Amino acid sequence: MDLIKVLLDKIQQKSAKIGIIGLGYVGLPLALEFASKNFEVIGFDIDSEKIPLLNSGRSYIHHIDSKKIFSAIEKKKFSATDDFSLLGEVDVIIICVPTPLNENREPDMTYIKNTSEVIQKYIRKGQLVTLESTTYPGTTDELLLPLFENPKSADEKFIVGEDFFLAFSPEREDPNNPDYTTSTIPKVVGGVTENCLEVACELYNTVITKTIVVSSTRAAEASKLLENIYRSVNIALVNELKMIFDKMGIDIWEVIEAAKTKPFGFNAFYPGPGLGGHCIPIDPFYLSWKAKEFDISTKFIELAGEINTYQPYYVVEKLIDVLNTNGRSLKDSKILIVGIAYKKNVDDLRESPSLKLIEILNKKYAKVDYYDPYIPEIPKTRKYDFDLKSISLTENTLSKYDVILLSTDHDNLDYELIHRSANLILDTRNIFERKNIISDKIFKA
Amino acid sequence: MDLIKVLLDKIQQKSAKIGIIGLGYVGLPLALEFASKNFEVIGFDIDSEKIPLLNSGRSYIHHIDSKKIFSAIEKKKFSATDDFSLLGEVDVIIICVPTPLNENREPDMTYIKNTSEVIQKYIRKGQLVTLESTTYPGTTDELLLPLFENPKSADEKFIVGEDFFLAFSPEREDPNNPDYTTSTIPKVVGGVTENCLEVACELYNTVITKTIVVSSTRAAEASKLLENIYRSVNIALVNELKMIFDKMGIDIWEVIEAAKTKPFGFNAFYPGPGLGGHCIPIDPFYLSWKAKEFDISTKFIELAGEINTYQPYYVVEKLIDVLNTNGRSLKDSKILIVGIAYKKNVDDLRESPSLKLIEILNKKYAKVDYYDPYIPEIPKTRKYDFDLKSISLTENTLSKYDVILLSTDHDNLDYELIHRSANLILDTRNIFERKNIISDKIFKA
Repeated sequence: MDLIKVLLDKIQQKSAKIGIIGLGYVGLPLALEFASKNFEVIGFDIDSEKIPLLNSGRSYIHHIDSKKIFSAIEKKKFSATDDFSLLGEVDVIIICVPTPLNENREPDMTYIKNTSEVIQKYIRKGQLVTLESTTYPGTTDELLLPLFENPKSADEKFIVGEDFFLAFSPEREDPNNPDYTTSTIPKVVGGVTENCLEVACELYNTVITKTIVVSSTRAAEASKLLENIYRSVNIALVNELKMIFDKMGIDIWEVIEAAKTKPFGFNAFYPGPGLGGHCIPIDPFYLSWKAKEFDISTKFIELAGEINTYQPYYVVEKLIDVLNTNGRSLKDSKILIVGIAYKKNVDDLRESPSLKLIEILNKKYAKVDYYDPYIPEIPKTRKYDFDLKSISLTENTLSKYDVILLSTDHDNLDYELIHRSANLILDTRNIFERKNIISDKIFKA
Repeated sequence: MDLIKVLLDKIQQKSAKIGIIGLGYVGLPLALEFASKNFEVIGFDIDSEKIPLLNSGRSYIHHIDSKKIFSAIEKKKFSATDDFSLLGEVDVIIICVPTPLNENREPDMTYIKNTSEVIQKYIRKGQLVTLESTTYPGTTDELLLPLFENPKSADEKFIVGEDFFLAFSPEREDPNNPDYTTSTIPKVVGGVTENCLEVACELYNTVITKTIVVSSTRAAEASKLLENIYRSVNIALVNELKMIFDKMGIDIWEVIEAAKTKPFGFNAFYPGPGLGGHCIPIDPFYLSWKAKEFDISTKFIELAGEINTYQPYYVVEKLIDVLNTNGRSLKDSKILIVGIAYKKNVDDLRESPSLKLIEILNKKYAKVDYYDPYIPEIPKTRKYDFDLKSISLTENTLSKYDVILLSTDHDNLDYELIHRSANLILDTRNIFERKNIISDKIFKA
């Protein structure tokens, strides 16, 4: 029995059963994509609260429509479970679990490790496992491979590329990107062996517009890191230049708009109150951590981290300056943060610099409220417990704050109203000028 | 008499006489552009050897065709001179002089200073002066303006925006770019006053496809720096990642090609043996120098400089490794550097990392030759005096070298021949793999 032929055939026939572990921003859209192409998909998640929601066709992610889930459930193409023993039933296992940092900014591999150990328990011959989580080069080879070669589900050793197949294929989700969705973003794939690569490409080709083959899982792991390191470094660069130009009396936003008119060799990045989201502030440090094993340091990543991490503190310094010109201290001043999602038009708070802003302002005895149309209240996280609810945005409430701190520039905010009613505004996104609202009560940070 | 109206009128009628100071890679094409639009242009240069060449219609820059110069001369639209007293005769003075660094990597403002002082001697009412040289924010306001406000050519003070006009408009030349030429690259313009801006835009609109207005000369100065800082930092970033990935056994070139397939948010930059040319290695330090005046440091620029400057040394380390595997030392080894221009398909040696490579290799007692189809011999510079001529590239000569060090990937090189005849190759541009020439005698640096 040639296992690779059997699996290839199942994929081509769409009779392969797909298991997806981790039903968040990456796993859920991918599961729905496979379901929409008539594969039967089982979604696995350790968060047991998600399971009944999904199985009754309800979404917990703002930009993923419940209808899509409901339709997949109804057609019996998708079901969710927290029973990982069902992993033995699927032909393909796709791992989409988080790879955060711990408090010392080191990779927190718990989710990948635990998931891999569960797979080790249930893996059977003929399965393909792919990892999509962003991680350091070597993860697939060094961490996953030895576990699956020594399955707890069998008495013998498994041979990769013959008994099972293993590949790395980084997710490239960009929530709310109007131009690209899961299926239309080309996907990089690296296999542990030639067979692994072949099966993984066959799989992804059924749902993704284009697969890009690289020579190893390490190259695939590195490619995703490069993409996010590039963003992290370039955002840090404009954040640094923002602070330098500000001292020189030059507006970075004007400078970027001018530089952007160069038709080649330049790409615009914009400053802000700090990095947010689950990728850019985190992923680069996976490489930093791994590099130490090779006696080498990642200076650009460290510097970018340093400068980006400093931005909320810089914003608070600016806020103190603005209050100071009115002879006021930050202590007892009333500050309203407008927009607390990590980027505009999403309901995603992960790593949002606004949380850090609230923390710093609290420590300095300011009175902080917030408004965000997408986030009615701030949930308790591992790091923060603010017990804050979004206020209502009216002329009356706005006028009560000493400063409006514009942190996230959602499209649906009423900037005219904010400007009209505010006493002072500190704008970290240059949104007021972009909306042609210019006045001497608006400052930039 | 309203001087601005007179000058605007002259520009519109194309009866304004244009003076361009500095007839190099920026000034010469710009002069020819104005001449081709029927302006009468006088080109000024302190290099008296250039004057008779130009006046007899001969080019000294590879990508500028002599015919273009000859035709402009013949139509009496262009003439060159080293007699700066003729500056009083022109209506517009455009400064295109070099802004290099001194040996301590500080701005060398000699050319701008001397030029401005000469203009101070001859400036007359009704003239427009624009500066195009890349420089620190504040140069136009702080260095040029006070000189022209106190002309030596008159007994009275001149008022900027009334008696004369002053603007900054950075050059964006990209020699050998097949898609863009002087006239089709949008041009940023900042004026000292509104009148200055108006006249400068009127002028550039006659030859440039589009002018981009900014609020000050400082913003214009900063925009050019941002463009080049962006490039310098991103090249340094891939150079750093090249060294890190190499230690991990990952090929940076493959990783970049994979990352490049992301259809948004990523732009590819490529590693190399070091930075070259008159812009990217130099311009960023103009901001670093100025920033110190404001008690702030430019960490990204410093780090990029550090990493890019290290690259030729890294290449030599790799060269030593390659020789070492054959049990050979660098001392007495015969090394052929192929390509010494700072980038492919140009005859430009300025700041070329190949010069630094030759210097390092000489110091380590290697026997170095070079081949470059565009550079028959290495001219003596302020820094180097090698007395080397390009060898001829044959099977016979190639086979005599221990290592061929590919430094610049000109399109017209015979890579098949090089590969066939070489003993070992160290490729800093990944050109052999890109030409599908793959063998175990090729190494990458």
